[in-house]
Amino acid sequence: MSAYLIPAADASFIDVPADHPFPIQHLPYGVFRPRTDAEPRVGVAIGDQVVDLAALANEGLFDHEALAPDVHPFRADTLNAFMALGQPAWRATRSTLHHLLREDTPTLRDNASLRTRVLHPQDDVSMLLPAAVGDYTDFYSSREHATNIGTMFRGPENALKPNWLHLPVGYHGRASSVIVSETPVHRPCGQRKPDDDAPPTYGASQLLDFELEMGFYVGTGNALGTPIRAADAESHIFGLSLVNDWSARDIQKWEYVPLGPFLGKSFATTVSPWITPLDALEPFRTDGPDQDPEPLDYLQPNDHANFDIKLEVQLQTPELDTPYTISQTNFNYMYWSMRQQLAHHTVNGCNVRPGDLMASGTISGPTEDSYGSMLELAWRGTKPIQLPDGSERSFLHDGDRVVMRGWAQGDGFRIGLGTVSGTVQPAQPLDA
Amino acid sequence: MSAYLIPAADASFIDVPADHPFPIQHLPYGVFRPRTDAEPRVGVAIGDQVVDLAALANEGLFDHEALAPDVHPFRADTLNAFMALGQPAWRATRSTLHHLLREDTPTLRDNASLRTRVLHPQDDVSMLLPAAVGDYTDFYSSREHATNIGTMFRGPENALKPNWLHLPVGYHGRASSVIVSETPVHRPCGQRKPDDDAPPTYGASQLLDFELEMGFYVGTGNALGTPIRAADAESHIFGLSLVNDWSARDIQKWEYVPLGPFLGKSFATTVSPWITPLDALEPFRTDGPDQDPEPLDYLQPNDHANFDIKLEVQLQTPELDTPYTISQTNFNYMYWSMRQQLAHHTVNGCNVRPGDLMASGTISGPTEDSYGSMLELAWRGTKPIQLPDGSERSFLHDGDRVVMRGWAQGDGFRIGLGTVSGTVQPAQPLDA
Repeated sequence: MSAYLIPAADASFIDVPADHPFPIQHLPYGVFRPRTDAEPRVGVAIGDQVVDLAALANEGLFDHEALAPDVHPFRADTLNAFMALGQPAWRATRSTLHHLLREDTPTLRDNASLRTRVLHPQDDVSMLLPAAVGDYTDFYSSREHATNIGTMFRGPENALKPNWLHLPVGYHGRASSVIVSETPVHRPCGQRKPDDDAPPTYGASQLLDFELEMGFYVGTGNALGTPIRAADAESHIFGLSLVNDWSARDIQKWEYVPLGPFLGKSFATTVSPWITPLDALEPFRTDGPDQDPEPLDYLQPNDHANFDIKLEVQLQTPELDTPYTISQTNFNYMYWSMRQQLAHHTVNGCNVRPGDLMASGTISGPTEDSYGSMLELAWRGTKPIQLPDGSERSFLHDGDRVVMRGWAQGDGFRIGLGTVSGTVQPAQPLDA
Repeated sequence: MSAYLIPAADASFIDVPADHPFPIQHLPYGVFRPRTDAEPRVGVAIGDQVVDLAALANEGLFDHEALAPDVHPFRADTLNAFMALGQPAWRATRSTLHHLLREDTPTLRDNASLRTRVLHPQDDVSMLLPAAVGDYTDFYSSREHATNIGTMFRGPENALKPNWLHLPVGYHGRASSVIVSETPVHRPCGQRKPDDDAPPTYGASQLLDFELEMGFYVGTGNALGTPIRAADAESHIFGLSLVNDWSARDIQKWEYVPLGPFLGKSFATTVSPWITPLDALEPFRTDGPDQDPEPLDYLQPNDHANFDIKLEVQLQTPELDTPYTISQTNFNYMYWSMRQQLAHHTVNGCNVRPGDLMASGTISGPTEDSYGSMLELAWRGTKPIQLPDGSERSFLHDGDRVVMRGWAQGDGFRIGLGTVSGTVQPAQPLDA
């Protein structure tokens, strides 16, 4: 079943500037409250508006087969029920929305009363976490990032571990602390060992970092024991978001051998509120880096499995008037594709479920200004990031705000993954 | 608030032999279906019966404050809603059940019709997974196990990593593949590297193992950013179960550096169907092993934080008529207590939620017959386990059945954690 493509030439009756993240070609999904006292419902962004899908359904405007009348996936506080309906339902919904929002469709365009019921200015709504994340998996799929980290910790000749070029290395993250953009992030406390010759101590992390990642949400899952083949994997992917996998490097360094990252990560993982349908990214497919050695058969095919999505990180310290761009990179640098990640994740029979989140791992490019973490950008504190007011940063300070953006540039339109933002709050030590 | 203790001398009108796992002093919780076509509901085991708590509530027999009339935590397919009500509700329920099941309480004892409505023979019901596990965490808290594994992989002088004696090492496991006892477990396929000098290959795991663990379920959780103190941790613990953390050692060995276990574990984790309330284990408290160096303050106090629970593993191969005991150990060997695990898990502000499962890690004792995995019992295949029919095992074969049991021995009664069982099914390779 081929992707549901919205032509580049199409426009909506809702005005959308050419560099706006949410044109009619996009139609990303989120969960929102129109007022603080209202029930959450599913929405789709277009321009500066949110289309209330629950309200559209109430008006009888979703009467296609894929959404049976007894199913109310849009009157929900998560997207999970809609995700579980599968690709035909997602595409039917996308088709309906495309039709209703086109400039030549009068249904909404010419009915002010109906528009009042189904459209809300984005500025007036609050965005919620879009899915109940059953399991959160974090991969480590950028060769540049893995090489940088390995070089810092083990030297350049031993940077990549022997398994890295054979399989998409990943680990289970913490699902409970996945939070939506703008949720404050407290500097974590825990056990660190700043002095190699002294015992570990308890205290606030001194090496707080971000990680620029992309994540995909599983739509339809698989039964325990039944792997998803690489060739089928994309039909299980509902859509993509930005992810900031906050990391406390001192806690992580002391704890992570031999069972991997734990408390150095589990205090917060921030996701953007809008989920971009995979179909909206179809025009931006590209081949990923050459894979040598050739991956095993279960990780094939992998042609055209990457996506050209520009990414950037901005830092705004309390002293800066505006956010300052400290990194620019691209999702197409990923060595292991989402298709390969999902095929690998399930090859042992592991079941995935609607709403599961799988993040890429830090996305670093080949140049020093394209690294996806402060650890790399400031090279472990040896090359602090220079800010325009003359100050510098090696790790995050309290009050620092991190803003990540991503977009695919089309012909006259832009598919923007929106923003994932968070501001560092002071630690809350146990003795306070 | 002190524990709700049921006196050792108490007895039920339901006959329970002295060595039976479910006397009136126990009252473990589970979720069951009385018939295949019936809705799941919460039950409590006593002798060979299940008390249907939804039916009891229907009869108006749960009229205490902690269970408000508009809350129906027992008409549910998981225990999560009941877990979330907190310790006062758990204790009030335990008190009500204690009263109703005593031999001198006529309510049920003398009302055959009522008994028919609220009691079901365990043989007639099917047990379900007791909780929706939001996040599953696996610790590594047996010093003997960590030392054995470290000795095998790194030599005796370097067996414990530097952090091990300072914090309860743990990692995030996969929640989606937590399954209830008796669910078949398929031998996983995946990427292994049996030959150090050749590339990795795809295929069925040849080194399939079990891990004997105990797990606890979180009852009430904490808000993101607000740690649970060690002194308060036990009030957040709903109860305990047996856990078999199935492990594919060849997949694990190839994948686990540097981010920890992933597909070598995520194909299945089996839990026992009954959850033993922490209060039922109160008479079996004991001090754990001496901790040297002294743990940091946030891991204190730790007095009387261990529990004397005898554990055993039985193996039944297709050729054996009865299960054969291959390991006997005790939960009180754990170096890090549940209290310390929960305090450590949340010290960075990580939130835990009702139904979260935290497993101990493999529980090994000091002697060769008290190890909790085949990897240790057969010492990496160098000392195969001798079975009574003359055969031997270093790892699990298809058709092998693993049965784990646990019990605390009281004065005239036994608190039995029931059984966690599973049988190895053949692999289902992708090319099949």
